[in-house]
Amino acid sequence: MNREALREATRSQMPAKRWDHTLGVVGSAVELANRYGGDPERAELAALLHDYCKYWPIDEQRRVYAEESLDPDLLEYDPQLLHGPIAAEVVRKRHGIEDEEVLDAIRYHTSGRERMTLLDKIVCLADYIEPGRDFPGVHNIREIAEHSLERALVAGFDSTIAFLLAKGKKVYPLTVIARNALIDVLNRAR
Amino acid sequence: MNREALREATRSQMPAKRWDHTLGVVGSAVELANRYGGDPERAELAALLHDYCKYWPIDEQRRVYAEESLDPDLLEYDPQLLHGPIAAEVVRKRHGIEDEEVLDAIRYHTSGRERMTLLDKIVCLADYIEPGRDFPGVHNIREIAEHSLERALVAGFDSTIAFLLAKGKKVYPLTVIARNALIDVLNRAR
Repeated sequence: MNREALREATRSQMPAKRWDHTLGVVGSAVELANRYGGDPERAELAALLHDYCKYWPIDEQRRVYAEESLDPDLLEYDPQLLHGPIAAEVVRKRHGIEDEEVLDAIRYHTSGRERMTLLDKIVCLADYIEPGRDFPGVHNIREIAEHSLERALVAGFDSTIAFLLAKGKKVYPLTVIARNALIDVLNRAR
Repeated sequence: MNREALREATRSQMPAKRWDHTLGVVGSAVELANRYGGDPERAELAALLHDYCKYWPIDEQRRVYAEESLDPDLLEYDPQLLHGPIAAEVVRKRHGIEDEEVLDAIRYHTSGRERMTLLDKIVCLADYIEPGRDFPGVHNIREIAEHSLERALVAGFDSTIAFLLAKGKKVYPLTVIARNALIDVLNRAR
């Protein structure tokens, strides 16, 4: 499948506003890849596909999640966490995406994970800072992203965790584990 | 060993200011036990002993931690987390405390854990709200503690997690897991 057809297939999964967000993430991911020595082509592909299933009905997301025998523990948390893991499975099957690094970056773009690859970090951070994003602290994260991928991502996770605390919602432990691992990386680099 | 001798032995482990804190936690724990149907005697005992090792030199805490073959994962986090788990082992050996519920409440008073007992909750919350405590939000937690043990404890963990985020420090995942479990309890009770 050529890239243009893949773009159209992806665009058809979501409302126009989310497509704008997707294009924003693509732009930011390519920019971050160029800045931090990542692969811009893989960054573009993972960013294009990261929200492939985001606007599917939650019941459909849960159905695919169960069908793919993914970790049932995640079902105890916010359903917003499902769309990354299922997108990785869906784009592999529907569009023949076989690059495991790209699939992992899609899979973990919302939660993060303990040992994030450069591509994981790029896509996850791009999702926080793409130009269309507007939440408390986003300007600060964009500024940090100019000079440290890891620090910016910690700031992104901080904003997510603080939001969940304020809302009285559960925090997915893997996000805390991802943040802890980034802090370890930063402390070791001192 | 009678209770007076145990108090003196405990008092001798810490500076006067921490002893005042200990007495505050004892008072708050007994009050919470009476309010929420806990056992005031066990609450008093666990509260008395909870900071038994808190002012031991960190190297000594680490030595005992290793000697007791406790979970090495905890060593990756703030050393402030060590004194609970080692106190449980130390008071068992030195003072013949065999009540496992009391020992667990001592062990988990800083971190919390997934399935907190009533006694765990009482001691952990008393440690947040005893009258000598003064940190942002403590008045709010004391107010919530008038009517919900679980909600107050969530607010306590929120303050700890928010503090660690603001300081750029790692968050011990078990605390997030403890908070998530309390939120599940609260949601089920709705």
